[in-house]
Amino acid sequence: MFRPQIKVLDCTVRDGGLINQWQFNDDFVRKVFTALSQSGVDYMEIGYKSSEKYFSRTDNGAWKFCSEDDLKRICDGQEKTMKLSAMADIGRIDDHDIPKKSDSALDMIRVACYAKEVDKAISLAHHCMDKGYETTINLMAVSKVLEKELDDALEDLAKSNVPVIYLVDSFGAMYSEEIHFFAKKYKAALPGKELGIHTHNNQQLAFSNTIDAIVAGINRLDSTIYGMGRGAGNCPTELLLSFLKNPKFDIRPIISIIQEIFIPMKAKVEWGYHIPYMITGILNEHPRSGMKAMSAKTLPDLRKFYEELRDGTPLE
Amino acid sequence: MFRPQIKVLDCTVRDGGLINQWQFNDDFVRKVFTALSQSGVDYMEIGYKSSEKYFSRTDNGAWKFCSEDDLKRICDGQEKTMKLSAMADIGRIDDHDIPKKSDSALDMIRVACYAKEVDKAISLAHHCMDKGYETTINLMAVSKVLEKELDDALEDLAKSNVPVIYLVDSFGAMYSEEIHFFAKKYKAALPGKELGIHTHNNQQLAFSNTIDAIVAGINRLDSTIYGMGRGAGNCPTELLLSFLKNPKFDIRPIISIIQEIFIPMKAKVEWGYHIPYMITGILNEHPRSGMKAMSAKTLPDLRKFYEELRDGTPLE
Repeated sequence: MFRPQIKVLDCTVRDGGLINQWQFNDDFVRKVFTALSQSGVDYMEIGYKSSEKYFSRTDNGAWKFCSEDDLKRICDGQEKTMKLSAMADIGRIDDHDIPKKSDSALDMIRVACYAKEVDKAISLAHHCMDKGYETTINLMAVSKVLEKELDDALEDLAKSNVPVIYLVDSFGAMYSEEIHFFAKKYKAALPGKELGIHTHNNQQLAFSNTIDAIVAGINRLDSTIYGMGRGAGNCPTELLLSFLKNPKFDIRPIISIIQEIFIPMKAKVEWGYHIPYMITGILNEHPRSGMKAMSAKTLPDLRKFYEELRDGTPLE
Repeated sequence: MFRPQIKVLDCTVRDGGLINQWQFNDDFVRKVFTALSQSGVDYMEIGYKSSEKYFSRTDNGAWKFCSEDDLKRICDGQEKTMKLSAMADIGRIDDHDIPKKSDSALDMIRVACYAKEVDKAISLAHHCMDKGYETTINLMAVSKVLEKELDDALEDLAKSNVPVIYLVDSFGAMYSEEIHFFAKKYKAALPGKELGIHTHNNQQLAFSNTIDAIVAGINRLDSTIYGMGRGAGNCPTELLLSFLKNPKFDIRPIISIIQEIFIPMKAKVEWGYHIPYMITGILNEHPRSGMKAMSAKTLPDLRKFYEELRDGTPLE
């Protein structure tokens, strides 16, 4: 029996774009749009909403910005059976850069922030709600936040009008036990709000942690096609849709596009389970050192890489 | 706090050998032996114990047979801090092919069988116990067995002297819910026996299902280095050792050998998460059709592959 409240958001273009600075051509994004739309996914997160004051189109592809012109090139002429989302990072967009919902192809703006920035995130999210959007706040990197700081952030979120709050395992460090711990904490602290989950695959737990989140009562689920995403990637959409019981989901369009696009792409671009990402995951560290190791011409000595990251810089 | 009853068995050479008919050279097996020994793993499963009457050394490497001469070439001169295991398949070895424990480098023989063969398996396992070995029975493919047949098999196993029984997810089809369902059933049916778990990674759940098995009270855990194994492979030893709290485990020798041997090997040999294996996993089917698809020069149409496997041959 399926749970009708469950909504799947595919963020292939947004999270996958972190690998190549969103340099996807329109044909790719259009094909992802069509496949997701046919698969029954509820939301497609098509990129970031960032200001061109802060980032250039020379260094970044269109999906770093998601201007209305960019969105039109993808959506025009396509049947719209799912909603479109973009993510906004604190400090990378100003309120007035966001059009009114009635002038936009976007349905939802998800605000990503660290616990210490939660006031700014709430302010931006309220602004987006005033402009007519569905809105969420995605609290990143909570596996490294002191519990007191997290509790304060959750208290602020509880008082806000933002209806959906995401648990984010930014470092791919959580086991099922942590998913249940945080889910319980968020539920207790955020009565009346819907919860979401966003996982990373450093320890091959992105899919299973998403299942644990479902068991814990979380209804908003993030995934990406073939797990594509920065570093170790994310919960694979094909696995998640196959697990979910709602008959509206169909994995066949996802299988087709994986074969056409993602298998050839993965032969050229490294994402997924690799030892440097595993090491940052098990040590609950930002994946940046793993990404540096993976982008080098030859891998560094991985045992040394592990020892150095584990031991850190000696304290006095 | 760690659970001292937990024992890890690494079956890289045995399960990984299913990929290449055990054509590993001695240097490889010796390096795996050394790395596992240093990592604190409790058992190394070094291959199958099969009869040379039934299989030839032309088609199969030494680790299909594990003769005492084969074992000596690996163990001689190495410090023995872990136990050695071999697997025996019903019908592929005769009782008299098994030497007495006092004449063997092996410590344990694990008997693998399907539910319908459980009487033969118990007979072979009792024979191995009489010869002095630690013994287990690994009941394969239980995700496809009728519950009545499984219950009968468990009843027979309960009456046997075999002290350790494994839950085996041969098709990589189980979710955490199934792991808990079977663990509960096995525990109830097999009082006083120790339970083990052997998982496959078709749905990226081999590691998480092993964790669920631990939570459900299962103490014998199978894994392979870098997840190497037939098809989608197994629970990765490096992830499992990092999860377990027992201070005797050290993942650094595993990281070193992954870099030296397994990363280069994986560039040539396909194991791990691939869509054909995912499809057999989600459909709870033997991986053979997935392996056939993967070994073809070009992948078949995967959407069609999925539809055909899902729909099967029409019944009357």
